[in-house]
Amino acid sequence: MDILHKKILEHGHVLPGNVLKVDSFLNHQIDPELMLAIGKEFATRFKDAGITKVLTLESSGIAPSVMAGLELGVPVVFARKRKSLTLVENLYTATVYSYTKQTSNDISISKDYIGENDVVLVIDDFLANGQAALGLASLTEQTGATLAGIGIVIEKGFQDGGQLLKERGYRIESLAVIDSLENETVTLRTEEVK
Amino acid sequence: MDILHKKILEHGHVLPGNVLKVDSFLNHQIDPELMLAIGKEFATRFKDAGITKVLTLESSGIAPSVMAGLELGVPVVFARKRKSLTLVENLYTATVYSYTKQTSNDISISKDYIGENDVVLVIDDFLANGQAALGLASLTEQTGATLAGIGIVIEKGFQDGGQLLKERGYRIESLAVIDSLENETVTLRTEEVK
Repeated sequence: MDILHKKILEHGHVLPGNVLKVDSFLNHQIDPELMLAIGKEFATRFKDAGITKVLTLESSGIAPSVMAGLELGVPVVFARKRKSLTLVENLYTATVYSYTKQTSNDISISKDYIGENDVVLVIDDFLANGQAALGLASLTEQTGATLAGIGIVIEKGFQDGGQLLKERGYRIESLAVIDSLENETVTLRTEEVK
Repeated sequence: MDILHKKILEHGHVLPGNVLKVDSFLNHQIDPELMLAIGKEFATRFKDAGITKVLTLESSGIAPSVMAGLELGVPVVFARKRKSLTLVENLYTATVYSYTKQTSNDISISKDYIGENDVVLVIDDFLANGQAALGLASLTEQTGATLAGIGIVIEKGFQDGGQLLKERGYRIESLAVIDSLENETVTLRTEEVK
């Protein structure tokens, strides 16, 4: 996706520890035009999948998801992160382990908004180890809905999340795949990955 | 704003303690078409204000803000909530007291994305006691930027946040004002409030 590639190369910053900082257009400051383009691209890739809901995770997943929902004409549900869940009566919950922070967090959605007749597109901003995407997939499966696929804005192709998700049989659509952040340089995968 | 009024009356739920639950279209599940309409309405109301940035608070403020940013053609910055701030070097920070939870939380933005030449539109999903809006106004003032006004999706007109913000001289634009949640019934203010 050219506009996204260009933005990453021009405005992404590589920090020590293979961290790509995209705070200027995705994770803290948000570029709404770029989000619209991203939403349109997800909608195009999943246009024949019969999507009825988009599911994402707060906070950085919300902007691209709302644009995808707008284009697909379907509602968006965002899972909430909670340190500990005291009230779990009407919730589906999954535990997400963060390798970066070495902590586990629960994520949850209400039982009210996704059901067994839904076809769900999961969207997240980043894919690295795949733990957040697995959590969102688990929430989808708990609802009884069909998981049509997982849309990712930026995949770190040198980490194992993409492989892990594919091995589980999930369809992954990453709009940008980073092959390396070595030498503080972003190397993007340029071939189309199908 | 008719479409928003209709949505609140049809899909809002009143819970004990004067809580209005709008989880089905704003706070958990999001209606993207409604968000677009809300964004357009904010953009219309502030079209002559010379807005250069929209500032909001994660997570429920993001969807309406991204649509407002799209319509105004400006970036959106979302403040993050953090229990305690260990790394504050490049951040502006404000403390927000929650009367509901009786706790204080810090909210923060990077120093990189809003500066003294910016004209900021603050947007939030709810206005009750006004503490979150005051926090966002404080962040804006710390940057040296001009605060053009505060756009609110739903104002609880029977709580004192609106009055508090007006007394401080801020321009407030609330797209729906709730006059009462007594008897588990939503009473919306129907006259146009200028």
